[in-house]
Amino acid sequence: MKFGGTSVGDIARIKNVAKRVKAEVDRGNQVAVVVSAMSGVTNQLVAYCTEMASLHDAREYDAIVATGEQVTSGLLAIGLQELGIQARSWAGWQIAITTDDAHGKARIESINADEMIAGMEQGHVAVVAGFQGIAPGNRVSTLGRGGSDTTAVALAAALKADRCDIYTDVDGVYTTDPRIVKTARKLDKITYEEMLESASLGAKVLQTRSVEMAMKHHVRVQVLSSFSDAPGTLVCDEDEIVEKALVSGIAYSRDEAKVTLIGVEDQPGIAAAIFGPLAEANINVDMIVQNTSRDGTTDMTFTTPRADLERALKVVKDNMKVPYKSIDTDKAVVKVSVIGVGMRSHAGVAQTMFKALADKKINIHIISTSEIKVSVLISEEYTELALRALHTAYGLDAA
Amino acid sequence: MKFGGTSVGDIARIKNVAKRVKAEVDRGNQVAVVVSAMSGVTNQLVAYCTEMASLHDAREYDAIVATGEQVTSGLLAIGLQELGIQARSWAGWQIAITTDDAHGKARIESINADEMIAGMEQGHVAVVAGFQGIAPGNRVSTLGRGGSDTTAVALAAALKADRCDIYTDVDGVYTTDPRIVKTARKLDKITYEEMLESASLGAKVLQTRSVEMAMKHHVRVQVLSSFSDAPGTLVCDEDEIVEKALVSGIAYSRDEAKVTLIGVEDQPGIAAAIFGPLAEANINVDMIVQNTSRDGTTDMTFTTPRADLERALKVVKDNMKVPYKSIDTDKAVVKVSVIGVGMRSHAGVAQTMFKALADKKINIHIISTSEIKVSVLISEEYTELALRALHTAYGLDAA
Repeated sequence: MKFGGTSVGDIARIKNVAKRVKAEVDRGNQVAVVVSAMSGVTNQLVAYCTEMASLHDAREYDAIVATGEQVTSGLLAIGLQELGIQARSWAGWQIAITTDDAHGKARIESINADEMIAGMEQGHVAVVAGFQGIAPGNRVSTLGRGGSDTTAVALAAALKADRCDIYTDVDGVYTTDPRIVKTARKLDKITYEEMLESASLGAKVLQTRSVEMAMKHHVRVQVLSSFSDAPGTLVCDEDEIVEKALVSGIAYSRDEAKVTLIGVEDQPGIAAAIFGPLAEANINVDMIVQNTSRDGTTDMTFTTPRADLERALKVVKDNMKVPYKSIDTDKAVVKVSVIGVGMRSHAGVAQTMFKALADKKINIHIISTSEIKVSVLISEEYTELALRALHTAYGLDAA
Repeated sequence: MKFGGTSVGDIARIKNVAKRVKAEVDRGNQVAVVVSAMSGVTNQLVAYCTEMASLHDAREYDAIVATGEQVTSGLLAIGLQELGIQARSWAGWQIAITTDDAHGKARIESINADEMIAGMEQGHVAVVAGFQGIAPGNRVSTLGRGGSDTTAVALAAALKADRCDIYTDVDGVYTTDPRIVKTARKLDKITYEEMLESASLGAKVLQTRSVEMAMKHHVRVQVLSSFSDAPGTLVCDEDEIVEKALVSGIAYSRDEAKVTLIGVEDQPGIAAAIFGPLAEANINVDMIVQNTSRDGTTDMTFTTPRADLERALKVVKDNMKVPYKSIDTDKAVVKVSVIGVGMRSHAGVAQTMFKALADKKINIHIISTSEIKVSVLISEEYTELALRALHTAYGLDAA
């Protein structure tokens, strides 16, 4: 069981979490619990670091910020004991969860949970401080924002757990954003692949890395709400899903900006010349489209995260190897994606999308496809209209 | 160097501490720094524990509360790096500072500072989270309130440090309380023995245990203010003090209550019968006086900490082996003590005290003496008058 910052936001909520854990123990299960810091605590600690020095040692940052989860794990252990459940807290170094030395965004390399498992087999609930591990040199490391999800999945894999329940402030994964589309439905099950596409597209229910890890180790992850008793959504292998829908959901991401280089010389190697320097500058380029050549020149359009737009423009303008006539940018765009493992074996999925958007007179700027996804970039003002039209077109509306 | 909670109370103060440490490094010294939690943090964490459960697992309490010092140590390391000083933080378990398993008030058993010393010899300042260690079972332990003083002294002993500077919100040890006696003087030096008597008498500049440890390991401890540049008071071996004063200072403690059992049967073993049950109930009895027997009965008077008075009375009343006629209590008392290693070799010190008090018509309830101390219990209303009279009588007034 993993509980995020909102679920353990104050003492009353931690007591509530203790009750949920007890219920699981009462059902006869051996339980390990992973907790985040109480909401607000991590931000406060990060602010302290920044106030001390705008650029600061990532190893010290980690030692400071990891304390938030330690506090919650101790408090939940006390809460469980108060309910008559044997429990003890485990910091990352105590287990130990060994990571690489990429402080601030470390990757788990191994987990030696022998002592913890021994405790669990004696009936103890293990309460684990999420988000952290121990790096070379005996230093505390953290896994990056949302890293507690990864802790939970990695631990579930190490424990060979039957299930990894991730409690959040949403009650599952939906066919699309229910705040926009009233007929959105909660999915009972979704595949790792689909979840990965949704996560990277902005449906930020789970940290992307945690889903990758779950997929790799076949950890069955359930997303559910810590504020209700409703069943959640199970993220699992494809073969566990009997009735596969053609399309599982419609995702969207507003975090996009479009850049068009007009009048670029059309010659072999031009794409490499443009995108090489962007990659070197660590700027993520997502969708790319190159127009048909005319008079020996072409237009090259691509998208980057909005936050990186200014840096991307500087890289392009400083790039002497790629002359162009003019440059055009657009931040008022949204990427809408239709996702479903079922489309691997079915043609016509993209066609349904294009027709549904055309019917609503929505112009498509860029198209990109993968094995289980079709994405289009459209003007941001059409977001809601497009989501509702696609949700209906793929038969996802609740009855 | 050790800095307490007020000295690291906020980011600005931690930056100020970093400057002080840098100054010490600039003087060519190898420095280890011990820090407390930012003021208020420990209380908040303790409150969380109590809110979760009024009685809680001391091991979890320790894991939670120890995080306060970890945060400060990381922040100070960042602050030092920002000033161009190489530094790294050390949690108790990282050093490691090994303690017994008396969680919440653990005692340091050993310090293996090899790795830390290696770092210091490469020019790194070691910033150590005070108040904590690692107990059997790989659990975090804490040393009890004020335990950072003990961490500092123990570490100074392990490092064979030339000096252990304890920065507090007072600028040294005075001949008596300067808030009461305007002519009180700051002492340049004081012996461990005198400091122990002062500390246990309520001049709470240093944790008692830290002074005991300093005495045992001959660690020269300097008490000074983190808010001024004035030299402090050195606590050291007697033979380092060339000009020994007969009396070093006048201490007092308002934390006393007096109990008198009137009409107790005067027979052998009566003291054991009274004080045995009190000791079993963990009630500290300080001064004891037994009146001369009259008609086969006597009066027995003793003092306890005020906070334990109710419990002490219950123990006495429940004690069927000791019948008495009546019981009398007085909370409005104060213990005033004259302290000085010089009195070992000089008679007449007590006499000076009795005469000075008699001259002011102050009645003495109880007298107790040790090798380097004479204490009297008097009515609380005379506290200031007594302190000033004694300060003058022993020639301690500033010129």
